[in-house]
Amino acid sequence: MNFQHHLSNLLPAKNGEEYTMQFLLEVVDILTNYVRKTFDRSTKVLDFHHPHQLLEGMEGFSLELCDQPESLEQILVDCRDTLKYGVRTGHPRFFNQLSSGLDIIGLAGEWLTSTANTNMFTYEIAPVFVLMEQLTLKKMREIIGWPNGEGDGIFSPGGAISNMYSVMVARYKHYPEVKIKGMAAAPRLVLFTSEHSHYSIKKASAVLGFGTENLILLKTDERGRVIPADLEAKVIDAKQKGFVPVFVNATAGSTVYGAFDPINEIADICEKYNIWLHVDGAWGGGLLMSRKHRHKLNGVERANSVTWNPHKMMGVPLQCSAILVREKGLLQGCNSMCAGYLFQPDKQYDVTYDTGDKAIQCGRHVDIFKFWLMWKSKGTIGFEKHIDRCLELSEYLYHKIKNREGYEMVFQGEPQHTNVCFWYIPPSLRLLPDGEEKRQRLHKVAPKIKAMMMECGTTMVGYQPQGDKVNFFRMVVSNPAVTRSDIDFLIDEIERLGQDL
Amino acid sequence: MNFQHHLSNLLPAKNGEEYTMQFLLEVVDILTNYVRKTFDRSTKVLDFHHPHQLLEGMEGFSLELCDQPESLEQILVDCRDTLKYGVRTGHPRFFNQLSSGLDIIGLAGEWLTSTANTNMFTYEIAPVFVLMEQLTLKKMREIIGWPNGEGDGIFSPGGAISNMYSVMVARYKHYPEVKIKGMAAAPRLVLFTSEHSHYSIKKASAVLGFGTENLILLKTDERGRVIPADLEAKVIDAKQKGFVPVFVNATAGSTVYGAFDPINEIADICEKYNIWLHVDGAWGGGLLMSRKHRHKLNGVERANSVTWNPHKMMGVPLQCSAILVREKGLLQGCNSMCAGYLFQPDKQYDVTYDTGDKAIQCGRHVDIFKFWLMWKSKGTIGFEKHIDRCLELSEYLYHKIKNREGYEMVFQGEPQHTNVCFWYIPPSLRLLPDGEEKRQRLHKVAPKIKAMMMECGTTMVGYQPQGDKVNFFRMVVSNPAVTRSDIDFLIDEIERLGQDL
Repeated sequence: MNFQHHLSNLLPAKNGEEYTMQFLLEVVDILTNYVRKTFDRSTKVLDFHHPHQLLEGMEGFSLELCDQPESLEQILVDCRDTLKYGVRTGHPRFFNQLSSGLDIIGLAGEWLTSTANTNMFTYEIAPVFVLMEQLTLKKMREIIGWPNGEGDGIFSPGGAISNMYSVMVARYKHYPEVKIKGMAAAPRLVLFTSEHSHYSIKKASAVLGFGTENLILLKTDERGRVIPADLEAKVIDAKQKGFVPVFVNATAGSTVYGAFDPINEIADICEKYNIWLHVDGAWGGGLLMSRKHRHKLNGVERANSVTWNPHKMMGVPLQCSAILVREKGLLQGCNSMCAGYLFQPDKQYDVTYDTGDKAIQCGRHVDIFKFWLMWKSKGTIGFEKHIDRCLELSEYLYHKIKNREGYEMVFQGEPQHTNVCFWYIPPSLRLLPDGEEKRQRLHKVAPKIKAMMMECGTTMVGYQPQGDKVNFFRMVVSNPAVTRSDIDFLIDEIERLGQDL
Repeated sequence: MNFQHHLSNLLPAKNGEEYTMQFLLEVVDILTNYVRKTFDRSTKVLDFHHPHQLLEGMEGFSLELCDQPESLEQILVDCRDTLKYGVRTGHPRFFNQLSSGLDIIGLAGEWLTSTANTNMFTYEIAPVFVLMEQLTLKKMREIIGWPNGEGDGIFSPGGAISNMYSVMVARYKHYPEVKIKGMAAAPRLVLFTSEHSHYSIKKASAVLGFGTENLILLKTDERGRVIPADLEAKVIDAKQKGFVPVFVNATAGSTVYGAFDPINEIADICEKYNIWLHVDGAWGGGLLMSRKHRHKLNGVERANSVTWNPHKMMGVPLQCSAILVREKGLLQGCNSMCAGYLFQPDKQYDVTYDTGDKAIQCGRHVDIFKFWLMWKSKGTIGFEKHIDRCLELSEYLYHKIKNREGYEMVFQGEPQHTNVCFWYIPPSLRLLPDGEEKRQRLHKVAPKIKAMMMECGTTMVGYQPQGDKVNFFRMVVSNPAVTRSDIDFLIDEIERLGQDL
């Protein structure tokens, strides 16, 4: 069909129905083609261009915004090109991020969410979504193990914000007067987290006015798990200095190593010293769905709050992150400002369902529907199968490379999560003696291989240094489309690209 | 077609392509039907049910989550029912919120965004979106009037978070050591905002550790605009008490009255006392697109930061909010934590495009594409037309009711924004003498009419008290589908429902 015509033909234009339906179906055609190709291993993961290339404009595709409107025909071209120059995060060979995959039910859920285009702040304008959120949070709390699923929670725009909520609520529990009087009303408060924990804990300490130097980093064992004795020693040390320990974060599934801190031992210390225990399960929380793997989070029911991102290990489209709080009323107490224009007490329905005043946001995106719909379609057992499968694939990778020539594991032993961390050592480095030269050269290997992968567009996997360890690959699996053949492909590709370095 | 089959037939299942396409097209059919009905005035705005009714389960629609999967057939029913029991925020007679309407191009943009399912933190996995964000923010800064569009900015999950950024950046500019040492490193800092400003400023003062009592509320004139002399007096008073004024918020388009604070006069005071000036244009920022109305924000170019939500007055689907900062580098300085696993310095491309470390989030939803696509399709002049039209409709309403029997305006004079605030006084109250009894009875009128509107499902409009004023209606227009006939309908409906109260 012909879209030379301009958007003034679309709804709400008079007689705009037919045009609108045709236009939307053209868009859907572009999108379903993209979906089809995403699952097709013969397509590339990405078609890499440098920023200056895209900024200069590709043929027929300019990012510049103008005063005058474009034709709908051009809008369709823009849609096609936006996808063409992007990255297929649902491709079975995209391993670059903790979030990957393209769940079809989740996708349908997001399309519906956009079409409903509403806001979570009140039951008034999001009745169904507000209830779905409530029921789903309760289910998550039951799975955590809080009695009868009691407690509180909210979906937030990501794990970093969820972790920030946990620090805020801990502060409010111990020093509620800070809400009104500011940090000056409290003594010097200190927070604890492992040196392997996610940087959002540090961000929260800066944002909320604690200061990053009042976040005390805990030592970990060689697998990246907190050493509880180090926590206790540092708590005692802080108290002796006159500081007040107020918050401990235990990570359930660290970002790089996939390590699970020993929650029970940490909980013992928190109880002894009356410190808020938060479990950051943004990445590892999904394992609670698996009878086989949930023991890695033993003790999670003793936490005061838990971050759990269904958009990571459970394959829900971005964004979907929950902060769950054991004690009811704290989120509301901490954040409520009782805005009269939004949270009128004299509505005709039960206004306890207007949950917006618990949030640090005002408007809040509907993140629940896609997750609820996926849960409906898979059932709890479907998430369990997915988790178990991803962990099996990681074990497969681990066993494949642990004794393979040219590979060295960053830490020993089977991975706790799907994270497999390893160095690929090109032939030219294998005979070098250990020492600074080898380290420096090895440090450059992963970035070089990664750059070539991206230029070829065949696969993507993350790398980073950690502590005194030079750049290594971090492989993760969260996409249900991945098979053993994709793991084999990754290893072949690393060797193909790295052999001459 | 028959979807008794279960989701294991969908991609990534072998030969799942055909099923997947059929399923997605069934979903699209549900969605396009919903879109069609949204614009049809013969359909209801909502089909109201109380929370307990929806929780008990409607016929064939249960919100409960189970262990076992549902059939795809049931999933389609769930999608249909979710929309059925929701609220049509795009309906031409939905006036309940500052965000309304259903822009077809924006909708297409959101569908594409969900399909791309990526994350804004790095250029690596969102090359096109990252560049679109950069170009769009620059365009917005040009429109604000900052030379060459220089400066900085980021899209955040809503106006409340954008306002929070502004307070954070102001604090970082004046007391950068707070990032490391916490609020203890600063003297007692005070913030200023009008008593009519959005509650998110108060939230930010609580969250960031200033304390709500250190947020000083400014008096307004009868139209809800800050009185600059009151600001200066309170700044002097605070300084005399030894407090340090660090941040002033000027609202451009207040939530209830739609008032624009006099930015130039406020900027004079901020410059004199070296205080950060933030303009909260979440609601009113859109008027910058209109040559006719942008004078209401005169002086905005003197602000140090500006919040501007395209998801409100510009009709972009939720969520789309920008925080713009005049000085480059502050956002990065304030928030960066340099996480090694995400922001590797040794990538093959120019890593200054990895903007994630500016954010308080880690993962960040792609909010830019729908906005960029709408801008492409409308051009700058399209937004201008939209804004001018909405303001004309408000003027129409204002003139229609200002001298009409049974109406009283909450403040006198033409509205500055599309907000028209008024009491409807039922015949039974008209002859009552002014006094407490009349006030108390009038206070109950708007909630009663609103409840009936919702039960009938014919239209929705907001109400609230403000200061010592009892409940009144706040009418706003931001939906391009609205016509004069819809305004007439609202007034007829208020009179129909309210005449016997």
